[in-house]
Amino acid sequence: MKQNQSIYLDNAATTQMDEQVLEAMMPYLTSYYGNPSSKHSIGWSTRMAVELARNRIATLLNVKSKSIIFTSGGTESNNMAIYTALRDFGCDHIITSKVEHHAVLHSVEHYAEQFKIGVSYVKLDKDGVADQNDFSRLLEIKTAHDKKCLVTLMHANNETGNFTEIRWISSLCKKYNAIFHCDCVQTIGHYPLNLPTEGIQMASASAHKFHGPKGVGFLYVHEDLQPSALIYGGGQERGHRAGTENVASIVGMAEALQLSYKNYSKHRELISGLKNALASNLRDAFSSIVINSCGHALYSVLSVSFPYIENIEFLLIQLNQKGICVSGGSACSGGDSSHVMKELGRAGSYETIRFSFSKYNTQDEIKSVLEAMKDLLPALISQNSNQN
Amino acid sequence: MKQNQSIYLDNAATTQMDEQVLEAMMPYLTSYYGNPSSKHSIGWSTRMAVELARNRIATLLNVKSKSIIFTSGGTESNNMAIYTALRDFGCDHIITSKVEHHAVLHSVEHYAEQFKIGVSYVKLDKDGVADQNDFSRLLEIKTAHDKKCLVTLMHANNETGNFTEIRWISSLCKKYNAIFHCDCVQTIGHYPLNLPTEGIQMASASAHKFHGPKGVGFLYVHEDLQPSALIYGGGQERGHRAGTENVASIVGMAEALQLSYKNYSKHRELISGLKNALASNLRDAFSSIVINSCGHALYSVLSVSFPYIENIEFLLIQLNQKGICVSGGSACSGGDSSHVMKELGRAGSYETIRFSFSKYNTQDEIKSVLEAMKDLLPALISQNSNQN
Repeated sequence: MKQNQSIYLDNAATTQMDEQVLEAMMPYLTSYYGNPSSKHSIGWSTRMAVELARNRIATLLNVKSKSIIFTSGGTESNNMAIYTALRDFGCDHIITSKVEHHAVLHSVEHYAEQFKIGVSYVKLDKDGVADQNDFSRLLEIKTAHDKKCLVTLMHANNETGNFTEIRWISSLCKKYNAIFHCDCVQTIGHYPLNLPTEGIQMASASAHKFHGPKGVGFLYVHEDLQPSALIYGGGQERGHRAGTENVASIVGMAEALQLSYKNYSKHRELISGLKNALASNLRDAFSSIVINSCGHALYSVLSVSFPYIENIEFLLIQLNQKGICVSGGSACSGGDSSHVMKELGRAGSYETIRFSFSKYNTQDEIKSVLEAMKDLLPALISQNSNQN
Repeated sequence: MKQNQSIYLDNAATTQMDEQVLEAMMPYLTSYYGNPSSKHSIGWSTRMAVELARNRIATLLNVKSKSIIFTSGGTESNNMAIYTALRDFGCDHIITSKVEHHAVLHSVEHYAEQFKIGVSYVKLDKDGVADQNDFSRLLEIKTAHDKKCLVTLMHANNETGNFTEIRWISSLCKKYNAIFHCDCVQTIGHYPLNLPTEGIQMASASAHKFHGPKGVGFLYVHEDLQPSALIYGGGQERGHRAGTENVASIVGMAEALQLSYKNYSKHRELISGLKNALASNLRDAFSSIVINSCGHALYSVLSVSFPYIENIEFLLIQLNQKGICVSGGSACSGGDSSHVMKELGRAGSYETIRFSFSKYNTQDEIKSVLEAMKDLLPALISQNSNQN
């Protein structure tokens, strides 16, 4: 397996860990092995590391340290946010959308059933983004019926890259006394977010999406809210999340976030250049494609639907044989057809590829991908196309 | 901080990662970074690593691969076991004990309330071990009242090291059609367990207790049982646990478990020698001590209660100043007094130190600890002692 010779354009699924991140983690994978709850110097050194990491993350996001709760990743963070909103914050209705990540959608289904509450799915516009009029209407109606709403909408969609207008959402949530949880797994570590400015009350993040380690993330919960635990046990995370802290990974996550803020402009420029080059060249080469990533989308994600391709799996395998790693949708959906593309009306005669970029990609790689697509696609386009 | 010059006798709290474990993890912290759910070669290489790790662990425990569910650690495993037993396996009563880890006790409290079911706490013998007659009586009575019981008892106590007679427990569970969950966090990776022989239906494990990484563990669930998830989202772990797999740590856990089986006899002999030397020398030096670890206890844990010490925190700090790291109880209980020692009647005029050993400790370290104890203890013994 020649991983290093591959062209990896699946960075929305996961990213390669930054060498500096691993360097920051190494002392905690070797010499500094203590349990942060232990009352001796070997424990104190890891307690300090965990709290310093919390402080670094909180400072970057412009929030209080105590509002950062370390978890095992974005999925757990989303689960916890939804659970605690219903149990602890008095929410008795959920407003969400059909294009959320399954970590939100399936948690919403489960907890709505457990708490016997209703769920409203906001209408989506042509880009798969929450329709502002419908959202406003839903929130007004539910509040008028004495419901306290949990609004859970993602900051940017993991398949299309398209942004939700979160400041607008948060201002309406404030007006109607709703709780706003935002799945920021695709944006924290990619944009220099200032959470108080965005007006979010809960935000989920995952380190491996921004060149940090897998198996660690955090949930931001506004300091005025008091969540209780999803996972019970010892008093770690001030009672909000039990279990011995994943010290090395927490340290790595803080380092990765710091690096992302430090190099934001440089990397955004590089990555935007890659995305724009691929998009415009694909458009030139294949006039019938549909670009699902709209003007207001992640600079790192390009979702493209191709008409008349009968077997996307075959195309992905052929691309892989040429060393090109891309996704047919999100990684988490595995082999299933995408619920997001279905909502966008691309489920029938279209097949979709998500190209997602990172700081480690180059313009030369984009040229190779383009050549490969030109080489492979014509043979895969079905007779339907020829008949039209 | 000179961690490497310390004498670390808090291995029941957490262990130093084995160099071979880190070596096994390194490729997955660097080159092999794919998301196991991704449908390309970079994803497949980590999918293979995860499934190979699952197979290695399952083979060591003599169970089927599909019965191993990877989690973020022992705490999550315990939470999941208790939750799924009540929700999916039809259990409507819990039998447990007051000396379980908080990850069990607090989960039991929470889920018993959520599912509105009763909890029975089995009587304990003088060693803090489940009383067999009382356990048998409870199980018989509850079953006669048409209750299906979840029995959750730990394999060995994390503070005293004392073993539960799990084969006896499991045979009774079988007789009364109860589900037996065993918190094996202190034994898996320390003993070559063969789970089918033990008759356990669910078992929790945590890698960092046996020289693996923090932030990863597993729950074994017997192949005939179908647990649903505690954490919802993508279809990872065959739908039993959502969230991108913590690949490097899963690989490290399998390596650590394999090493523990491979070197079991050698390390058990070494560690037992350390424990026995410290126990007998402490008994000789301080005649009034009580050894809480009974004859049938972990070879790696020695719990000693000292009468008439007024300030255990002060002793621990003084030991720490001499480079000796031990625990006043479990790490997870932090500064709180131990619920286990309270149940053993050691809460009043006794203070307790838990010495817990690993393969990295030496007889020279034990000699140093003994010297330090002889040096420090006399000055700390209160006037109560002198008056007697």
